[in-house]
Amino acid sequence: MSPNLILSPRDLDFLLHEWLEVETLTKRPRYAEHSRETFDAVMELAQQIATEHFAPHNRTADENEPRFVDGRVEMIPEVARALAVFRESGIMSGTFDEEYGGMQLPQTVGQAAFAWFKAANVGTSSYPFLTMGNARLLLAHGSQEQKDTYVRPMLEGRWFGTMALSEPQAGSSLADISTRAEPQDDGSYRLTGNKMWISAGDHELTENIVHLVLAKIPGGPAGVKGISLFVVPKVLVQEDGSLGERNDVVLAGLNHKMGYRGTTNTLLNFGEGVHRPGGRPGAVGYLVGEPHKGLSYMFHMMNEARIGVGMGATVLGYTGYLHALEYARTRTQGRPASSKDPASPMVRLVDHPDVRRMLLAAKSYAQGGLALGLYCARLVDEERTGETEEDRSRAHLLLDTLTPIAKAWPSQWGPVADDLAIQVHGGYGYTRDYPVEQFYRDNRLNPIHEGTNGIQALDLLGRKVTMHGGAGLRLLAETIAATTARAAGTPFADLAADVDAAVARLVSVTGTLWGAGDPALALANATAYLDAAGHTVVGWLWLEQALATRDETSDFHEGKRAAARFFQRWELPKVHTWLDLLESLDRTVLDTPEAHL
Amino acid sequence: MSPNLILSPRDLDFLLHEWLEVETLTKRPRYAEHSRETFDAVMELAQQIATEHFAPHNRTADENEPRFVDGRVEMIPEVARALAVFRESGIMSGTFDEEYGGMQLPQTVGQAAFAWFKAANVGTSSYPFLTMGNARLLLAHGSQEQKDTYVRPMLEGRWFGTMALSEPQAGSSLADISTRAEPQDDGSYRLTGNKMWISAGDHELTENIVHLVLAKIPGGPAGVKGISLFVVPKVLVQEDGSLGERNDVVLAGLNHKMGYRGTTNTLLNFGEGVHRPGGRPGAVGYLVGEPHKGLSYMFHMMNEARIGVGMGATVLGYTGYLHALEYARTRTQGRPASSKDPASPMVRLVDHPDVRRMLLAAKSYAQGGLALGLYCARLVDEERTGETEEDRSRAHLLLDTLTPIAKAWPSQWGPVADDLAIQVHGGYGYTRDYPVEQFYRDNRLNPIHEGTNGIQALDLLGRKVTMHGGAGLRLLAETIAATTARAAGTPFADLAADVDAAVARLVSVTGTLWGAGDPALALANATAYLDAAGHTVVGWLWLEQALATRDETSDFHEGKRAAARFFQRWELPKVHTWLDLLESLDRTVLDTPEAHL
Repeated sequence: MSPNLILSPRDLDFLLHEWLEVETLTKRPRYAEHSRETFDAVMELAQQIATEHFAPHNRTADENEPRFVDGRVEMIPEVARALAVFRESGIMSGTFDEEYGGMQLPQTVGQAAFAWFKAANVGTSSYPFLTMGNARLLLAHGSQEQKDTYVRPMLEGRWFGTMALSEPQAGSSLADISTRAEPQDDGSYRLTGNKMWISAGDHELTENIVHLVLAKIPGGPAGVKGISLFVVPKVLVQEDGSLGERNDVVLAGLNHKMGYRGTTNTLLNFGEGVHRPGGRPGAVGYLVGEPHKGLSYMFHMMNEARIGVGMGATVLGYTGYLHALEYARTRTQGRPASSKDPASPMVRLVDHPDVRRMLLAAKSYAQGGLALGLYCARLVDEERTGETEEDRSRAHLLLDTLTPIAKAWPSQWGPVADDLAIQVHGGYGYTRDYPVEQFYRDNRLNPIHEGTNGIQALDLLGRKVTMHGGAGLRLLAETIAATTARAAGTPFADLAADVDAAVARLVSVTGTLWGAGDPALALANATAYLDAAGHTVVGWLWLEQALATRDETSDFHEGKRAAARFFQRWELPKVHTWLDLLESLDRTVLDTPEAHL
Repeated sequence: MSPNLILSPRDLDFLLHEWLEVETLTKRPRYAEHSRETFDAVMELAQQIATEHFAPHNRTADENEPRFVDGRVEMIPEVARALAVFRESGIMSGTFDEEYGGMQLPQTVGQAAFAWFKAANVGTSSYPFLTMGNARLLLAHGSQEQKDTYVRPMLEGRWFGTMALSEPQAGSSLADISTRAEPQDDGSYRLTGNKMWISAGDHELTENIVHLVLAKIPGGPAGVKGISLFVVPKVLVQEDGSLGERNDVVLAGLNHKMGYRGTTNTLLNFGEGVHRPGGRPGAVGYLVGEPHKGLSYMFHMMNEARIGVGMGATVLGYTGYLHALEYARTRTQGRPASSKDPASPMVRLVDHPDVRRMLLAAKSYAQGGLALGLYCARLVDEERTGETEEDRSRAHLLLDTLTPIAKAWPSQWGPVADDLAIQVHGGYGYTRDYPVEQFYRDNRLNPIHEGTNGIQALDLLGRKVTMHGGAGLRLLAETIAATTARAAGTPFADLAADVDAAVARLVSVTGTLWGAGDPALALANATAYLDAAGHTVVGWLWLEQALATRDETSDFHEGKRAAARFFQRWELPKVHTWLDLLESLDRTVLDTPEAHL
């Protein structure tokens, strides 16, 4: 497959350099070793490995999902081979500290590089990306011993990691997990319980798997305040770092999904007694940080994971858009609606306005979502390396506010891009001979995992825009206003005015919702709020992109401006429809009793 | 599976009797043998057979799609067994004339009965439904001999039928088909060519298959005006009705789809020389009606097929909604957003407002689409048996106008209902252990086949609302106005006002679009027009349903009113967003050149 069907190198280049100007980051001490050349080399390497080693088995992995055989996971050998190449490349640890073997790449460049793997094969790429999230959490909250024991092998790609949060009875509701962790005399814990939906929970890809497990220490507070975090390796690690006894973490089964099949998804039993490390019952776990603070640590990883989900959803939409564009440029079908002379030659699909509409819509979602994901990554860099404390704390606040949008918006609209990609292909797109139907199936997971989009909506309206007296929303509005001010006198002043109007109403409606003094009513229509905020933010980022085209006149730059116009005309007006509903304090969903559903 | 997870008998009863008052049809001569009792008996029979014989193998058929083995189609035996029961029931010929063994059921009752089979197992039910469409076309346009030879065995369920229109190079563009039909001395034709996407194109379910094939007679006019229609049996029929030689119709392969897998979808080669009936080359075909009129005959069947596609899309959404409702009522998860006391018990999903939003949305799409489909069926009855010529011609015009909406609207929003059904289930909904992911995959075909939704949009705006000087749109507006007038003084007067406003703007914007004098510009945003018209029509039908609840206060009737309110508040306002775009004569998709996509 051509890399140009996976992602657009030109667009990534535009976003990184013409828009986000990542080269300026090399002035900061953390990134001082880097240059435009090292960034370009990483991007080229990612493109090459994704194209040559990840994309070719994307369909094969879908058709041959991991199997549960004799208590182990069997999968096609291409996955291990691709991950070996990935491991050798050093990209795995690319954004991590040099101290841990990393390259100290900016997060912005790292996310752009990772996008290649997700777009090429989201199933295979999950294994290292989950591992990176796990490692980052241990680096932030683990002890030095935990970092040395677990993080180094993970960043070398020798071990992989997981997040083990959900349980069969508690998917979204972590307060209700029932896995228990009993303290032992030696300072370790023994865990018993069942975990569900654990991606990459078992496999033979690495010699060990490092599970980060949420569990409750008996006697702790009820609910989320009683949740602690443990590192639970599949195989216990001896003092010299070599592998010892098998821990009592047992694969109980695999989930069989509609898509995303390359990533094995597991039920794991902890402390079932299948293995008895040290001759005693329970899976051995080691507390991370302090007791009862597990959820706050996990959220540290989940925010990163949520942005990662959004990026995955965006790039799955992006590759769908590119496939559709290619197909529409080559496939002939019919004649223009306004001229049906049967003697005239057939035109290409791309010559039909309705096909162009679908392509522009898909482009505006995919490229809008990519801009959102990379903007958030840029905020991570700013949060970490901003010049002043104020810069860093502003970046942190803005990122925190944007996170539910960065997760939910692309996972709402990325699948729509894939839906449109199928439609552009017609009947062929519905067959398994073309890849777009897989993108559509794969992408359907994204509105569900890492917190459903409904939960993101509650997070945005119930927490993010109210915290610190509404400082997050104010900062977002100020940041947007700085962009729209720059648009004065440009051809995009009208788009800026539309964005300003959307932001002003979003702020005003937020006040109306919370001013009514009824939290249940304020939150009842939170999804409409998330939709409105998401479209407003992406409208702003389309303005940002349009302004970043400056006075360039290449087809690429004109194409950016066309997509910005499309988003302005076809998408941005929806914001007011959602806000009208919210402003009316509509009680329909709140008041409809179960018996009337 | 409980029938209450397939469709709602209570809702069907409401739509048929409390709203459409089908019992009044028994006063007409064609339906005089019928009564409420015979209608109820048919509905109960359909429910029972669909529940007991169609639903149980819906997943099995998905997991074991038809296979191409030694030139034949192999499929799971449950399909043949279910269709044998269906055949014995007489439902197949239910709406046909007594002369051909039918029951002369009203189309409205027939469509309601058929809905059970589509909802229970859309893959298996396609075989008889395609056959019924085929039979209806031959009854309308075939010779007496063709009716006797082919229609009788089809209505007895002994033979099945297909529509063979598309070709590999001409999916949506029938003007470009290249299958040729050479006239023979005996009045028959010999066909050569390749057909693609032929549902039920080959199988061992029946001893013969009656293909209706579009082909060109050499020397005819170019384009669609040179297309003729032929009946081409898989096995030639002898004068006494017994089967003779194998015709030269050869299965060349099967398409492997994302969903709808139970319905085998084929490539068929005509006249390849594999068989040589009568020792001569070419597949034997018999002209239906007059030469070069094939497309108009086929459209007779396609209009019925399009409404059938809409019904299928609706009921797949409906069963998704019912499954989600059941799941939401039983599965506990989390606590209300406004009260997070971890000591309180978990609530059910249905207690979360955002879950109620998803259920109300799915309900408003599924029940709205079902009302639309049955209303169109009622127009078929009116068109056929209306008391005056004017009644009949008005029904015909209204049905013709509504057909693109009846196809496209449910195939746009039915899949959204299934998308929401997955979301309500969370991670479980994404697994193949729950049926909703199959509904989602199955339903994705519907915006594509029988004319893509983009083609429906061009049909609506380019033909249906302009034909006869705009008489179709005027009639639609008058019909809607009669409903809104009835709402005066009721609790739904405000909904009526919203519907009136939407219709008024739809009419006005139609004038704006065509008044600009540029057909290419008028048609460029046709999809937004279809969206606006569809939501307006369904908003009207929700008003119709709300009014039909009269002063009943059961949970069912309150639930109808709640869904009508939901559609009014959350959906109907979208009409104005689409119409704003259209009214601005936006040129974005028209003017964006390929290089900027």
